Amino acid sequence: MISTLRQGYEARLASLAKDDGANPFASNPFAQGAAYVRGEIVPADEAMVPLFDLGFLRSDLTYDVPAVWDGRFFRLDDHLARLERSCAKLRLTPPLSTPRIREMLIELVRKTGIRDAYVDVIVTRGRMKTGVRDPRQAEAAIYAFVVPYIWIMPLAVQETGGSAIVTRDARRTPPGSMDPTVKNLQWGDLTRGFFEAFDRGASLPLLPDADGNVTEGCYNVFAVHDGVLTTPGRGVLEGVTRLTAVEIARAEGWSVSLTDVPVGSLYTADEIFLSSTAGGIMPITTLDGAPVGGGQVGPVTRRIWERYWDLHSDPKLSFAVDYG
Amino acid sequence: MISTLRQGYEARLASLAKDDGANPFASNPFAQGAAYVRGEIVPADEAMVPLFDLGFLRSDLTYDVPAVWDGRFFRLDDHLARLERSCAKLRLTPPLSTPRIREMLIELVRKTGIRDAYVDVIVTRGRMKTGVRDPRQAEAAIYAFVVPYIWIMPLAVQETGGSAIVTRDARRTPPGSMDPTVKNLQWGDLTRGFFEAFDRGASLPLLPDADGNVTEGCYNVFAVHDGVLTTPGRGVLEGVTRLTAVEIARAEGWSVSLTDVPVGSLYTADEIFLSSTAGGIMPITTLDGAPVGGGQVGPVTRRIWERYWDLHSDPKLSFAVDYG
Repeated sequence: MISTLRQGYEARLASLAKDDGANPFASNPFAQGAAYVRGEIVPADEAMVPLFDLGFLRSDLTYDVPAVWDGRFFRLDDHLARLERSCAKLRLTPPLSTPRIREMLIELVRKTGIRDAYVDVIVTRGRMKTGVRDPRQAEAAIYAFVVPYIWIMPLAVQETGGSAIVTRDARRTPPGSMDPTVKNLQWGDLTRGFFEAFDRGASLPLLPDADGNVTEGCYNVFAVHDGVLTTPGRGVLEGVTRLTAVEIARAEGWSVSLTDVPVGSLYTADEIFLSSTAGGIMPITTLDGAPVGGGQVGPVTRRIWERYWDLHSDPKLSFAVDYG
Repeated sequence: MISTLRQGYEARLASLAKDDGANPFASNPFAQGAAYVRGEIVPADEAMVPLFDLGFLRSDLTYDVPAVWDGRFFRLDDHLARLERSCAKLRLTPPLSTPRIREMLIELVRKTGIRDAYVDVIVTRGRMKTGVRDPRQAEAAIYAFVVPYIWIMPLAVQETGGSAIVTRDARRTPPGSMDPTVKNLQWGDLTRGFFEAFDRGASLPLLPDADGNVTEGCYNVFAVHDGVLTTPGRGVLEGVTRLTAVEIARAEGWSVSLTDVPVGSLYTADEIFLSSTAGGIMPITTLDGAPVGGGQVGPVTRRIWERYWDLHSDPKLSFAVDYG
């Protein structure tokens, strides 16, 4: 199943890069990615943000990341609904309405010709008069970019599963400081976690909270014990891929509990997997250097993985981009 | 004393703006501020940061803010030493050495002609290849800007004292998530605090931690009880203005304790003041809508305020910028 998905994906990547005169995208300045800044579309590499944008000077922003797979946007409206909720929680009024953001993102993907795309839309507080400390006086700004699909865990690694650690050094920022249901780029704790993971010979960090429960990385996490799935019910992003995984698991007849997941329970799990738009369903087969369950990708993870990618062609959850 | 300081400051502001042919700065494109980006000096308003700089896309950065007062840099080397420590803690190697950063900042101030300046230097993780999650592969970037001096509390308000609240809604991000001794721009909690302060009719938030101690805002805080000063000893920025206030208080014979400061103790304080490079020593005479002590700026705060500004002309702590 992974090999089939991978073949199709790699064939699309190769055809995008082909320059035989018949490929309209070979000379496309946006073929490596495009960005929307100040109402204009520019090659991704050239996209700039004003230094005085509070998105930079205060990380005062929220964002969302829908993806396009095989030319189809997946659950775009779920991502846009979450973006709306995030903006409301931050008291941010985006300079474009949700339908206009939707159009803009589709247009951006269309312009790149990229058929497997990572789509990032960011709403910032924008600029305010220098020295003013009142965020109500700022005018919100919006940025977006489309680049080739990003794999937090490379597809090749997904075949046998990746390695994670529970961080000892970094704890997830608590909701009372920064609400994690507002998708944000205050990645200080996560970056610290990535450094610790690399230092300890692993690839991906999982951050605990102060109560001894696991939270998330830049992805949600699921544990499987005797066919029962658990995933943190609070203090984490309400991931769209997490939702999809929950829906799939329940449709398959497995019980899923959104609840506190004690760190200790990860070490007795039969299976662990991560979920994120950037990589999908990512099996973890090594935790803190030791095998998870039998050390192989387990049957629950494998089944959810398969259904997850199948759903990307389901017209109820996806629609085709008209690349013209 | 405030009125003297204010007269000098306002006279300098007025002379900068004067366009009588004799003022070499009137036609200066940098008179409103200048920024250093990618090795070039540009008018502050035009300064741009690449969207893909991890300083924007992850708030993966640190910064520092020295100031220039009446043409003299104050404690610049203390700020640069802290910037070095912050970079080391984040495993960031700035693209310029500290002596080069020092020169660059002086040159930037000189170019603007601004004699009372807020100077901001930011070191970011820089860019890395799209999709890579390994911050070790990024190349650090540096940005700086100089704008007219910023008052977190306007000088006019400092005469009678400002209003603050202890936030109910926002708690300060704990050190286990983001080390506050690394000066950072992950202001989600502070921004939330400012919204709450405005909602509650005050100007400035003070954030508690999860243990019921006060931490900071975008400034340090001091409480005075019977001539004894306390200021939070951990979980806060090790402010240069805080250090100056501690040094002044001790030189005046007052005892200062860097310790846990329970939120409750603020409500029994004779005096409360904040300290920050952007505003100096800022008296708080109203807390949660009620007067602090007698509701007037107290003698300890007033004395530290006076000494603080006096020290700005002390050659041991400051040096003159050669504006040419």
